[in-house]
This record gives sequence, structure tokens and C-alpha cells, in this order.
Amino acid sequence: MTRFGYLGPEGTFTQMALLAWRPAQDGEHRPFGSVDLALAALREGTIDAAMVPIENSVEGGVSATMDALNADEPLSVIGEVLVPITFVLAARAGTQRSAIRSVGTHSHAWAQVRGWMVANLPEAAYVQTLSTAGAAAGLAASSDGDGTAYDAAVCAPVAAHNNGLEVLAEDIGDNSSAVTRFVLVARPGRMPDPTGADKTTITVFQHEDRAGGLLELLEQLAAHGINMTRLESRPTKSVMGNYCFSIDFEGHARDERVGEALMGLHRVAAQVRFLGSYPRADGRSASILATASDDAFLEAQGWLRHLRGE
Amino acid sequence: MTRFGYLGPEGTFTQMALLAWRPAQDGEHRPFGSVDLALAALREGTIDAAMVPIENSVEGGVSATMDALNADEPLSVIGEVLVPITFVLAARAGTQRSAIRSVGTHSHAWAQVRGWMVANLPEAAYVQTLSTAGAAAGLAASSDGDGTAYDAAVCAPVAAHNNGLEVLAEDIGDNSSAVTRFVLVARPGRMPDPTGADKTTITVFQHEDRAGGLLELLEQLAAHGINMTRLESRPTKSVMGNYCFSIDFEGHARDERVGEALMGLHRVAAQVRFLGSYPRADGRSASILATASDDAFLEAQGWLRHLRGE
Amino acid sequence: MTRFGYLGPEGTFTQMALLAWRPAQDGEHRPFGSVDLALAALREGTIDAAMVPIENSVEGGVSATMDALNADEPLSVIGEVLVPITFVLAARAGTQRSAIRSVGTHSHAWAQVRGWMVANLPEAAYVQTLSTAGAAAGLAASSDGDGTAYDAAVCAPVAAHNNGLEVLAEDIGDNSSAVTRFVLVARPGRMPDPTGADKTTITVFQHEDRAGGLLELLEQLAAHGINMTRLESRPTKSVMGNYCFSIDFEGHARDERVGEALMGLHRVAAQVRFLGSYPRADGRSASILATASDDAFLEAQGWLRHLRGE
Amino acid sequence: MTRFGYLGPEGTFTQMALLAWRPAQDGEHRPFGSVDLALAALREGTIDAAMVPIENSVEGGVSATMDALNADEPLSVIGEVLVPITFVLAARAGTQRSAIRSVGTHSHAWAQVRGWMVANLPEAAYVQTLSTAGAAAGLAASSDGDGTAYDAAVCAPVAAHNNGLEVLAEDIGDNSSAVTRFVLVARPGRMPDPTGADKTTITVFQHEDRAGGLLELLEQLAAHGINMTRLESRPTKSVMGNYCFSIDFEGHARDERVGEALMGLHRVAAQVRFLGSYPRADGRSASILATASDDAFLEAQGWLRHLRGE
Repeated sequence: MTRFGYLGPEGTFTQMALLAWRPAQDGEHRPFGSVDLALAALREGTIDAAMVPIENSVEGGVSATMDALNADEPLSVIGEVLVPITFVLAARAGTQRSAIRSVGTHSHAWAQVRGWMVANLPEAAYVQTLSTAGAAAGLAASSDGDGTAYDAAVCAPVAAHNNGLEVLAEDIGDNSSAVTRFVLVARPGRMPDPTGADKTTITVFQHEDRAGGLLELLEQLAAHGINMTRLESRPTKSVMGNYCFSIDFEGHARDERVGEALMGLHRVAAQVRFLGSYPRADGRSASILATASDDAFLEAQGWLRHLRGE
Repeated sequence: MTRFGYLGPEGTFTQMALLAWRPAQDGEHRPFGSVDLALAALREGTIDAAMVPIENSVEGGVSATMDALNADEPLSVIGEVLVPITFVLAARAGTQRSAIRSVGTHSHAWAQVRGWMVANLPEAAYVQTLSTAGAAAGLAASSDGDGTAYDAAVCAPVAAHNNGLEVLAEDIGDNSSAVTRFVLVARPGRMPDPTGADKTTITVFQHEDRAGGLLELLEQLAAHGINMTRLESRPTKSVMGNYCFSIDFEGHARDERVGEALMGLHRVAAQVRFLGSYPRADGRSASILATASDDAFLEAQGWLRHLRGE
Repeated sequence: MTRFGYLGPEGTFTQMALLAWRPAQDGEHRPFGSVDLALAALREGTIDAAMVPIENSVEGGVSATMDALNADEPLSVIGEVLVPITFVLAARAGTQRSAIRSVGTHSHAWAQVRGWMVANLPEAAYVQTLSTAGAAAGLAASSDGDGTAYDAAVCAPVAAHNNGLEVLAEDIGDNSSAVTRFVLVARPGRMPDPTGADKTTITVFQHEDRAGGLLELLEQLAAHGINMTRLESRPTKSVMGNYCFSIDFEGHARDERVGEALMGLHRVAAQVRFLGSYPRADGRSASILATASDDAFLEAQGWLRHLRGE
Repeated sequence: MTRFGYLGPEGTFTQMALLAWRPAQDGEHRPFGSVDLALAALREGTIDAAMVPIENSVEGGVSATMDALNADEPLSVIGEVLVPITFVLAARAGTQRSAIRSVGTHSHAWAQVRGWMVANLPEAAYVQTLSTAGAAAGLAASSDGDGTAYDAAVCAPVAAHNNGLEVLAEDIGDNSSAVTRFVLVARPGRMPDPTGADKTTITVFQHEDRAGGLLELLEQLAAHGINMTRLESRPTKSVMGNYCFSIDFEGHARDERVGEALMGLHRVAAQVRFLGSYPRADGRSASILATASDDAFLEAQGWLRHLRGE
């Protein structure tokens, strides 16, 4: 049985991402206390894959994911999941909203429900917890009068349900269309086949930290018709001020235009770390210019062979 | 007296950044449970400035800082501090290293001492805490036999000292040159004067999410001789897949080349959010091409006036 | 009375360009044997302006015009004329088409009527002349039996008319939409006012002969929303392999975007030679992106002043 | 025996270029009255190759060469020759310099000796001829008192010698390092082998006449490490204002970087006309960045195959 790790505890948005990943439905699911611990377990072979946040996470971990993917032993991204972020206010059965004096949750989640809190529970004190799910579990494990630090938790609906808490208010996030992006990471192996709606993730290390350097890299992408969807400069571990670039773009390493762009980057960069090509979570087909289609590349190859007299 | 907030509790690396900020030495220092809470207090006027992490933080908060700077009410960056990251292993007086069964710290810090732990305390269990300073404080507040969750803490030297803990091992980080970057944020006001060794931070919102969009923005920087030091695409709050760019570059808004570049970005982007020009922490003078010096710009202005017959 | 020179003799397409230039209607018109002679006379003050070919000329001179504009003493382009190229077959009165054994004209004109000649006078020998008008004049000055080198001339309709020749066939050019572009050159003085439909001509000398050099120049144009209409690398006089760039683009030196682009080029190039801003012959308004309008530049200036606190 | 055409008559600088072309030494040499006539003869099969000017020519023809190479039936450039331009003042035997009242030559040559003339023969009238060699031949064919239009000719040394004229002054050009570039053109066939010091000539037709269009083309060259040596926008025959680009660059179509760049252009341009790869006249090796060497491309191909699991 395949063993899947995730950023726990049970009830986090990361677990929701893993539950939404169809191939994981029959596998074993193991929570980890941090992204680093999950990816270390993956590298050591204790688990077979790990679901981790890569962008806009409620419970942190994005930097840890990035840094772990860029560090020495290669790992591969093999899938992507988008999870809508929905918060509920949950409490032990019988708690009245008017009796809530304090609320526990992860600090990022607290930031995303401040509008609702100011309007509805302006007097409530905030208690920081390690995760939203931890807030729910901690509340459930306590009982009246035993000195629990808070009266209600802000968490995902599933965390309230798992812990037998009562939902006092639904959908209390200030931004009702918030979404977090997760990726499924595995040890390197066979990459997923192209689907026509794929993404590729790479890290590019520059030769020098200079003005033109990034432009030169981006021109390799532009020259081959590649559409970027995420770009970050990341400090490299050794010295502040030396940077690499973490990049997502549309397309699959087996697409002609992607292959040419990767080769171009490989030539001009100090190092290109290929982190995987995988189906997009939203299933949206890549927008490919006519001049960058596989046909356009194959036609150009034929033309070159002809004029070279090959 | 000026009131400074920081990402607490006492003893975090963010507090160390604030202590290193000379103008803050005579002010009042207030810890906050999260970056969001500190910046909210700043916006509400409860404090006058806040020290927050902006890159490579041991205790998280980078995303929160970015998002808060990009959100609706303007804030300004007025200074930058770099803090070397040094971890110690600390315990209550009298604890033997051989007696340590568990270690508490922030999950990011744990990731940065794993090499030392595997070599020296391979059997120790990890206990997650909200911050490194919180690990030290929690340990100090407990006593033998009262069920404390961990026997030792990984924290900054100052946190060990503040909490009366004994240092069992120094400098246990796997990367001895690690540095974290913090910024001092204030409500908009007079910007710091140019020093010749300045940085500027902006957020640029694109008109559309398209391949050429970022290149067009970077060409405005390149065309005016601007040297970038950090670049990140950030999802905008509303919909996953719409991005803005968070950019640091060398130079001050009162430099000619920076002024021209800012105007160029203002023209071609949907919106440019100017977050401040401030002295660099490392005091390194900007590397300015002869073709992008103030003199070169002023000379070009004179030439244009002449040929226009003005 | 203003004295206008042109590439003669009378009846050339260059004279037609001068006749089409309204302000020249009351002036004196003087033919010159070459572009070089006309521009030398202009520099010496013998004439006040010169009409010369600058692109796609039937009778040569384009290189001479370019080189003269780039050489040491400045000259200014103050106007532009487009002349449709229409060729006629002309002969002395009474000549039958069937009696034509040889045809005289400029070699470039001959190239442009070869299709018609192959179809209609396949046996006719070609006799090279210094100009199309010279072919007509030479034919008119001769008489039957005096050993004239050719029986018919290919020339402009006006040359046939001026020389009292009979037109045997009209519009015999292989490309019925051919047009030649001429410019009116003067000694430097007050530049024509902007009309909203202007062109600017410059020569840019590079610091070095290198791959990125031209890209850097073009990025100054692109970064300021400038639309090029002509570009040529020209060898500089001294050594083969050193190049400058002769460039036409839409807009007037008093337009904001043009001013900024010119200053940018002035900064990054070894030298920029400004050759004039003048109304376009076709009266077509410049296509200006919303991001490059005068309003966009003025708005950006106001924004910068505001954020600088000026 | 191979038949070579050239822009005549005998004694032109174009003939000097042909004489300098070693493989032509045993061939037949035929002068033509214009570049158009020479290339028409080549297309018709009357000759096997033609030497024609392509840059900076004393006797014109550059536009004709360009246009002929871009027109419908393909021709190939197979070689390049550089000829130093040296002018002499020649006259019939016995003529004294003081007796010279008029001088005949091509108008472009006249422009290049004006400095010498102003200093040495300020009173001499100028008589325009079809070529410098024609000036010499015409002078030789005349005799005193028979109404020759001029007393001396400006021509190449070889033309003076061929026509039995006496050289009154040598090296009278104002720019003693002037050089003209010629190319040997043939019908398409086997392209010359790479030598490591090659040039390639192409014409690129754009999809639209727009600001970004040329930048997009140049980025294909820059992205593959190609060094341009000549660039011209050329009006296409049909309508004034539609342009193609005539480009020379370092390298051979069989070089990896050139092949990739050609394919890139083929994809993004409306049409690429490949006009030939041939050894450079100056034998200077291409300056190739380490990131654009054949090795770099082959290494990148191996890397891509590996990560694709091929």
C-alpha cells in the first residue's frame, strides 16, 4: 500500500489536498509536524509521496517546500491540487457564541478572518496554535473548567467534524475565493505522461547576480513561446544576496517547445534543476501560440534539414 | 517615546533585528504573536513602526509581511536589517546532554539543525513550538517532573540567556553563514534620504497574466540601468493565477535612473505600489553603469533641451 | 527666393518629389548630377534645401544620402515626400513600336520594366544611362541617323513630356504600386512643429560591435512605446565591420515618449545623431499605445513627484 | 569552364573582387551593365556565378543585389570578398596635371575624392559617368580635340593600366581605409562546408509591421548566442511601409547554434529566406560564447534526453 505523508495534524488543509488526490484514496496517510519532516521521511523512504503546500498556504510551509525541493537530493513534483480555503468557527457542543472570550487558530488563518471577528466577536482574545487543525483538536481534548486557553477554534469544516465540534458560523474568511496550491512530491522516477494541460516546475541557478541575468533566462522562455505561471527569486543557502529562480510554466518536458526552452536554460544558466512535469489541477489546456506548437517545431526541423541538405 | 512592534515573543530573531536597529534603542519594544497582528497594530496607530521578516525567515512570516505590504492601506519600508542565524542547544541548569530525550523548537529551526541532531542526539524526539523563543520560555517555565513536553530547546543565544537556560552546545546550525533579512515598516511619511547605498521595494500589478508581461516590466528596469536584488510573483488575493510582482532593486526613488524606471513601470503596469526607499543593511553602494548615473541622465536632459530648441 | 536643389537632370523622379512639395512651388529649382553634389551645395550655402532619395530609389543615391546625413557637418530632414513610380516607354514622334531595336534608361529602372520588355519587346537591346530623365533628354537631343545609341527611353511621364517625346506605352513597371521615398534636407534650424503624424530620423553609433548592442538600443525604443519604420546598420566610414544604425520612427522630438527614448539612446549609445522630426508624407497619425501617450507620461511624472514628496 | 559574371565594364572594383576570388582564376569572366542584368543571366543559366556588391559600393548596385536575392527564384551566396578602395587620377599619356579642366568618374567615386580635388584641382569640372572603369575607357577611346567630355578620369589602378592611361596621382581617396564588400552568388546547390570562420545571410519577412516584431526576431538570435554583423530593414516590393529584414550573422547553417536560431526564426517569422553560409573574407573566427558552442548544445541535448527518460 502506498504511504502518503502530509503536513498535519489531521484536519489541516494539506490533508484536504491529499484526500482530494484520487490516487491517494486507497493509500495510507501519515501526518507530519512540518514540511521538513515530511520531506525528510520521503527522502529516507519511510513514505512514498508527500503532499505539501507550494503557494499561498494558510499554515505556512511554502518556504520549506521550496528549499527542500532545491536542496541536494532530487525530489520530483508529480501532481498538483488546489484547495478552496473555507473557515468555520467551531466550539464544544453547547457553547453559545456570546460566551466566546478567546479563539485559537494558526496565525495566518487568524489574519484571514479578522474582518469577520471585528464585526462579530470584537472582544475575543486571539490564541496562537501550531495549525488550524491543532486548534480544533486542542479544544476537543479539553473540557470546561480545565484551563483550556480558548473557547472556540477557527479551522476547516473537516477539522470541526473530525473532532466532534459544533459549527457556530460557516465561511467566515474575509476572502471567499481564497485557494491554496499544494503539490504531491515523490522520489525521482517515471514522470507523468503529457495530458495537454500540464505544468513544469524548475529551479534555475544563475552564473552571477546581475541585472541582465534574469532577462537572459526569461528570453529563453519567451523565445520558445513558454508561458510562466509563477516566478520567485530565492536566496541560495550559502550567502544572502545570491539567488536562484523558482519557476512554474505551462507545458510538459516532452513538449517540443518545453524541451527547447529547457535546453536553452541549461546552456545559459549555471544549473537547471528539473523538478517535474505534471497535470495541472485545473485541467486548463496550455495556451500555445501557433508559432510554438509541436507542429511548428517539427516543421522548422524539416526545413532546417532540407536547407542543410540532410 | 517611539513604540516599536516585532514578531515575538522576546528572544526571537526578529527581536534581535530590532535590537540591532540603532534608532530603536531608546524606544519601547512590544512583541506580537504574528506579523499580521504587528502590522494591524501599526495601521491602527497602537505602535509607530514594526520590525518584520521579509526573506528567508527562521520563524515564518515572510508571506504575511508581503501580503500586508500589498494590501489596501499603504505602509512604508524605512529600513533593513540582516541578522546572522545562530542556534544553541539550551536546557535547564544541571541537565546533562545524555539525558535529553526530546527537543522543542520552531519547525523551520528544526530543519536547520537536523544535521547536528542526527550526529549528536539521534534518539531525541522533536516537539514543535510556535517560535524558537517560545521553546526557551516554555522550558524555563517548567520544572522537572511536571510533564514538560521537552528536555531542551533550540533557540537564539539571547533567548537562552533571557530565560536563564544553560547552553549545552553552540552554533549548531547546519549552515553557519545563514542570514535572515528583516525590514522596519512604518506608516507613510517622509522617506529616508538617499545615502548612495539604498534599496527600493515595490509591488507591480500586471494588466494581464501573460508570457510577455513580466519581460515588459523587466525591460523598464533594464532600460534604465536598474539592478534587481529580489523578485517574486505573488498571487493576488482575489483569484489563484492572477499575479503581481514584488521587487527589490538597488537605488533610491530620488535617483534619476530610479525615477525614470518607476515612471516607466507606472505607465505600462496596471498599478505600481511604492513601498519605500531605504539604506541597505550591508552599506554596499549601488553598482551603477556609467550610462545610468545621475550625470548621464542630466547630460541627456540637456542634450534633449538643446535639440528641441528649448 | 528659396533655392531648392535636387538629384537631376530635369524629369527625374526626384524632381517630381520636389514639385509635389508645396512650399517649394515658388522657389528656384536646381538639378545636380548626384546627391553628393546637391548636399555639398547645401552645406556650402549655394542652395537652401535639397530633395534627395532616402529609400527604394529608382535612380540610386540612397547610400549617398545616408552617408552625407551621417557625416560631420549636421544637416536636418524637414520633410518627406512619397512618389509613385510610373514608367512610360517614350520615343521621338513618329517612331513605331515595331521599329524599336534598343532602349535607354537607368539600370534600376530597366530592372523594374524587364517583365514588360520580355513580353513586348523581347529583342530590344538595353543601353544604360545615368538617369531615366537623361535617357529621355538624350533621345530628344538626337535625330534619326545621327548614331543615337537607342530608339526609345524608359522614363517618368513628365520626362517624356518635357522632352517632347511621344508615349508609346504607359505604366510599364512590373510592380504597379511601387513608391519611392524622398526627404527634403536643410541646414539645421528650427524644426517643424509636431502635427500628430510625424516621423523622426536618427543615426545611432554603438560603443562596440557586439550581439547585444542593437538589442539594447531597440529596448530603449520599446521601453518608451516607440514604433520603428526603418532600420539599417550602416558601416561607419573608418573600418569595415564597425556599424552605426540609421533609424526612422513614428513621433516628434517634442512628444514625451520620443524625448524619453532619445535621452535613453543618448545615455547608452556612443553617439546619437538627431537628423530631424518632420510631418509624414502619408499623414497617417502615429499609433500610440495608451501607455505611451503624452498623458501617460505626464501622469507618471505627477505620480513620481508625489511619492518623492516634491 | 566556369562562367563568372560581374558588374562591369572591365576595370571596375567588382572585377577586382572577382580577380581576387581564387576559384575564379581559371574561369571565363563576363562584364554586365548592371547587377540586375548579371543576376538575370545567372538565373537564366547563361553564367554559373556572379560577383556583385552587397555593402558600401563605390559604383552602386547594393540595393539591386539585395532586391534580387530577395525576389522569387532563390539564389545562394557562396563566397565573400573585401576589396580596398584605391583611386588614381589617370589621363592620356602626356597630359599635364595643370592642363586638366574636367574629370570624369562615377558620382559615388567623385564623392570620395572631393577633398583631394578641392585641394589639388579646385577648378576642375565634374563629368558623371556610368562607372569608374567607364570613365577610364571613355577617356582612352577619345583623342585630343575630338570633343571628349573630360581630360582625366578617377578610377581603380587596374582600369588605368588596362586602358593605357598614365597615373598622375595615386591613392587620392579621402578615406584611405575604405573597403567594399562583394559576394559571389550562384544558383542553389551544395553549400560550402563550415570552416569555423563563416557568415550566414538571410532575409526574414515579418508577419506584421509592428514595434515588437523586430525585437522578437532579434531575441531568437540572442537566445541562441548569434552575433549579427549587418541588419537592414528593406521595403518589400508590394507596398511602401511593409518591411523585411536582411541580416548577416557569424556562423554556418551546420553549426548547432545557427541551426537552432534558424528554426526559431522560421517559427516566428512569416518567412525566412536562407541565402547561404560561406567563409568570411577576413578569415576571422566566429566569437562564440561558451554557452553557445556546439558542445554546449550537444551537452544540453544529452541532459534533456536523460531527464525525459529517453
